[in-house]
Amino acid sequence: MINKLCIIGVGLIGGSLARALRAGGYAREIVGCGRRVAALQRAVELGVVDYAGASLAAAVQDADLVVLAVPVGATADILAELGRLPYGGIVTDVGSTKGNVVATARQTLGKGFARFVPGHPLAGTEQSGVDASAPDLFRGRRVILTPEAETDAQALAQVRAMWQAAGAEVVQMNAGEHDRILAASSHLPHLLAYVLMDMVVRRDDHRAVFAAAADGFRDVTRIAASDPVMWRDICLANREALLAVLRQYHSDLGKLADAVEKGDGKWLLDTFTRARHARDSLNKQS
Amino acid sequence: MINKLCIIGVGLIGGSLARALRAGGYAREIVGCGRRVAALQRAVELGVVDYAGASLAAAVQDADLVVLAVPVGATADILAELGRLPYGGIVTDVGSTKGNVVATARQTLGKGFARFVPGHPLAGTEQSGVDASAPDLFRGRRVILTPEAETDAQALAQVRAMWQAAGAEVVQMNAGEHDRILAASSHLPHLLAYVLMDMVVRRDDHRAVFAAAADGFRDVTRIAASDPVMWRDICLANREALLAVLRQYHSDLGKLADAVEKGDGKWLLDTFTRARHARDSLNKQS
Repeated sequence: MINKLCIIGVGLIGGSLARALRAGGYAREIVGCGRRVAALQRAVELGVVDYAGASLAAAVQDADLVVLAVPVGATADILAELGRLPYGGIVTDVGSTKGNVVATARQTLGKGFARFVPGHPLAGTEQSGVDASAPDLFRGRRVILTPEAETDAQALAQVRAMWQAAGAEVVQMNAGEHDRILAASSHLPHLLAYVLMDMVVRRDDHRAVFAAAADGFRDVTRIAASDPVMWRDICLANREALLAVLRQYHSDLGKLADAVEKGDGKWLLDTFTRARHARDSLNKQS
Repeated sequence: MINKLCIIGVGLIGGSLARALRAGGYAREIVGCGRRVAALQRAVELGVVDYAGASLAAAVQDADLVVLAVPVGATADILAELGRLPYGGIVTDVGSTKGNVVATARQTLGKGFARFVPGHPLAGTEQSGVDASAPDLFRGRRVILTPEAETDAQALAQVRAMWQAAGAEVVQMNAGEHDRILAASSHLPHLLAYVLMDMVVRRDDHRAVFAAAADGFRDVTRIAASDPVMWRDICLANREALLAVLRQYHSDLGKLADAVEKGDGKWLLDTFTRARHARDSLNKQS
């Protein structure tokens, strides 16, 4: 059990982590911190955190571990602010991209960079905010940690233990690998859903299309309800890896359109069969 | 209550319709018919149909209503065979495309075309086969009927009543409109899921991508487990309308890739915000 845990950003992810760790008795006290006072008050009201820090300096003081649970776009400012404080404990984050966070942390944290453990829990819903937080959000989910050569082994072990206490399975890889993998497994699917939804709503007959939308359309577009600001920031932060999968997908989709145009049934059947096979193997993994 | 209902193709759709109509006491007897003897036997075993017809001629004899519940690719042959039989009752189908079915029926059914009511229930899962059939598959779901100028009003009323007895809500539109709407609401999403799954499985690191696949990826690709033969046939049957939405999506996705490349945060935020808005309104409809 640690003494003091500080969670910066008590939304869906930060709130769920706080709930999970309270349930597991991981920290003697959990303090929340964030820019939006109303959201913080709500977190205290709900009992998600013990109290709200009046400032970042007050919140992190004497903390054993600070978790940055803010959107990717807000991480740089907070890391910079943290770098100017005398805080000497462990810091981790939950950002969906890692290369940019590592680069910023290296610039801003100085000696403290060795105690920064970049992390990314593969959990979340299309909802956001502390009201959507739940203690079992990370149960059985994967958390990716991407330590650098400088990362302190004890800091790494502490962050690993925290996620395990929240019920997650922890894996490690390097930041570049993380960003390439997530571009395919998460970022691209979100963009495909957004583009589909946006394409349909611009049609004159979009009401009829929505009325005809069965489970398939609903499943594919569910994540188009995700937070636009967060996803804009992810696009900007993971530009290179995302562009690679976007261009690949764009090219593959063009080939499919050509096959439809030519009536090439063999190409279509082969592609769909490979895809179905792959999807079935994914089902067996979960 | 009608006397004899004949269902040709007792798979997910035909089997579920039979179960729903039995539960509702719609027909005195339901006979199944199909090419695969094992599947038919299974349908009899499960009590989904009363008995299996030995041939199409025997199965449809004295039927009040014949439902073609076969994949789009098999419809033409059965309509041709039906056109050569002395059957004079009502015929309807469940195909995912309507323009091609109407054209074929007009060619093959002769005078019987007036008693052919083109239909499409907007229900189904990524599963197939009579074992996956369920009596509530159509409950609260929409069924689109696309009658032509020649379609007999009584035949139309009978088919409408059948779907209502299965718990569905029936709407009407013309075949071209149906095909354009379904290209966007159903066919395109299936193709996007297939292409994504196929793109990922061809990567060297596809195991790591699958391991990192959270709910978003799983939701978007769920329908990539759908029957490849059925979807090849839909692509061939709805070529024109499908190509229009494919080309539009391809162009939109290219613009998104350009925005990511340029780091155009405003374009990205605007697009994601419109899409989220649209997705939220879809949620309110369901």
